[in-house]
Parts: sequence; structure tokens; C-alpha cells
Amino acid sequence: MGTYNVAPLSRLVEQFEQLPGIGHKSAQRLAYHVLGLSQEGVQALTSAIQEAHDKIHYCKICCNLTDQELCPVCRNESRDKSIICVVEDPRDVTALERTQEFNATYHVLHGVISPLNGMGPDQLCIKELLARVHAGGVQEVIMATNPTVEGEATAMYISRLIKPLGVKVTRLAYGIPVGGDLEYADEVTLSRAIEGRNEL
Amino acid sequence: MGTYNVAPLSRLVEQFEQLPGIGHKSAQRLAYHVLGLSQEGVQALTSAIQEAHDKIHYCKICCNLTDQELCPVCRNESRDKSIICVVEDPRDVTALERTQEFNATYHVLHGVISPLNGMGPDQLCIKELLARVHAGGVQEVIMATNPTVEGEATAMYISRLIKPLGVKVTRLAYGIPVGGDLEYADEVTLSRAIEGRNEL
Repeated sequence: MGTYNVAPLSRLVEQFEQLPGIGHKSAQRLAYHVLGLSQEGVQALTSAIQEAHDKIHYCKICCNLTDQELCPVCRNESRDKSIICVVEDPRDVTALERTQEFNATYHVLHGVISPLNGMGPDQLCIKELLARVHAGGVQEVIMATNPTVEGEATAMYISRLIKPLGVKVTRLAYGIPVGGDLEYADEVTLSRAIEGRNEL
Repeated sequence: MGTYNVAPLSRLVEQFEQLPGIGHKSAQRLAYHVLGLSQEGVQALTSAIQEAHDKIHYCKICCNLTDQELCPVCRNESRDKSIICVVEDPRDVTALERTQEFNATYHVLHGVISPLNGMGPDQLCIKELLARVHAGGVQEVIMATNPTVEGEATAMYISRLIKPLGVKVTRLAYGIPVGGDLEYADEVTLSRAIEGRNEL
């Protein structure tokens, strides 16, 4: 009887299985979908993968992803270059841009300090951030890493490097999320919200 | 302020979004994963997609997927060619092969009759099946389409075409699944299980 295998198909399933969040069943489903695509559809998919990988690199200033020398934010003359918002990930930039309220620049660390996962300060884009601060003209660095243990530790680590240079370092406000429910807020968030209360 | 977009990245996200079961967030996650791959990793992924699409086609006999002229089952001399098991999908063949008990051949329809989805008998590999039966040597056709409304209708349709040719047409047994629980079995399955009871 033997196992029934078609080599190119199982290679494709294996490749899809290596993608994040894709298990064996989903990988099979994706592979069968690919088999059913038109020649142009397959071309579009493979060239999109190849092009994105080849053309996208870090912005020379803020380490965000771009296909040009500088990212659109760093290229934009009307952006306030004296404020730098430090985030973990390019996706955080997209999230902050969605607010349409932030008109300064970003700096993407590409991770957080996490010794257990083998991520030390040297693996992050921290030296690029220090170079920007050293170059002068920066008045404030906003630490916008995630409110997790690693995010906090990274914010703390970077603020200790930057404060001695005479630059203001701030942190995103903690509190109850808008539209949230006090009943379901956890204790830490609630006590941070009380601590940070503002006069009306 | 404007939206923050990198053209090759958004093209890749769009491509991933078109895959089945992949939403916008998952597509973003996959795209960022691709950016982090090595040059070899990207090569392996794109060539696996391209190769699978280029090399895999229908087996000349049973319409299963293969990268050669005949699939391994049809090539295998020790398989009983007088019994054909008709399934909807290549994945059903894999499932049946896992039982390691079936030593005959398959025929893959690549779908079921479903007028609402625009699938008529002409879109399925039914004429290839009839050609096999006409060619002679076939003693039994086992209808192993799924126990859904469309699967049943397709089984019925095909059996009406084949029976006049003097070939035995059978259907997979209905009943309670092994390891299942009577309490949770639906009424139709239970009444089919009673109908089809066997002497011990």
C-alpha cells in the first residue's frame, strides 16, 4: 500500500507549515489553493514574496521598514524631528499613524530586551537611536514599547542611556482603555489609572 | 500626516489575504515573517509554490494529483484495478490511504454537483470515470463522496450512469463513528446505524 505522496506538493505543504500560525491542515489547504491558481496568480504571489524580501530594508534614520533610503515619515519635511517615539515593531508605527494625531518621528527597535529569548540590547536598533540623540536637535524621546515585562525593562534600559544626555524621556500613559469596562479592568491597570488621574 | 505604506509590503499583504482562511492580521504576520527570512528561505518558499503549481497535474487514469503521468496508486501493479473508489477530493485519497486497508484504485471527482455554486456534472471528472468503466475490467465502484446533501446527490447521479453498464455500485456504510458517543450522535446517523445493523 505505502504512503501516498507527491514530492512537489509535500514540499509546498512543508514550506507553508513553517509560516507562523499555520498548522498542517491549514498548510494543506493553502497548498491545494495554490494548485488551483492561474499562472498569473502564482506569478503574482511568488513575485510579491520575492520583491518584498529583496526591496524592503531598514530606514537609515529610524530603522522602520521601507523600500527607499528613508521611510515616508523621515522624508516628510513637516514632521517634528525633535520628538522621537520609540516602538518595538513596524506594526506599532502603523497603529500610531492610525491615530492621525502624532506628527513627530519614530524609532523602531525591532524587538525588546529578552534574555530568555536570546535578545540582548545589541540585537536591537538601540545604537542607531543613541546616534540620533547624539547628533542633536532631539528634545524628547517617548518610550512606546508594549506594557509587558520586557517592554518595561527595555523602556527603562533605554531611558537610563538617554537621560544623561539631557534629553527628556517620557512613557505612554497607563490607564483604562477607552470604551473599556471598569468591572473587567485588571487591578494593575486600575491602580495605574488612579495614580495617573487628571483634574477635570 | 497621511497613511504609512510601503508598496512591496502592502502588495505582499494583499496577496496573502487572498489565500483561504487568512485575514488581514494573519496576512500582515505572514508578510513580516517573510521579511525576516534568509535569502535561501525565500527562494525555498517561492520555488516550492512555483514548482508545485507547474509540475502537479491530474493522473491520466484516476484524476488524482501527481507530478508524473500516473499517480503512485495507478502505477502500482499490486493494486486491484477492478474496484474503483470515487472520492470528491485528493485529500480524501490521503485519508483513505491512511487506513492501510484499501488495496484498490481511486477516482477523484474534484468537487461535487452543486448547482448553487455553479458546479454541474461537466465540471467534475465524471466522463473520465465513465471511460474507465467502459474500458472494461471494472467490477465494483464504491461511492465515497462525503455524507452531505451534495455528496449524496453526486453519488446518486453517478450510480445511475454506471449501473446500466452492469457494474456493481456501492456506498460507504453509514453509522456511528468509532470512539463516538451514542448520546451525542444525531438522529439521522442513529437511524442509519439501526437500519444497517449487522449480526454479531
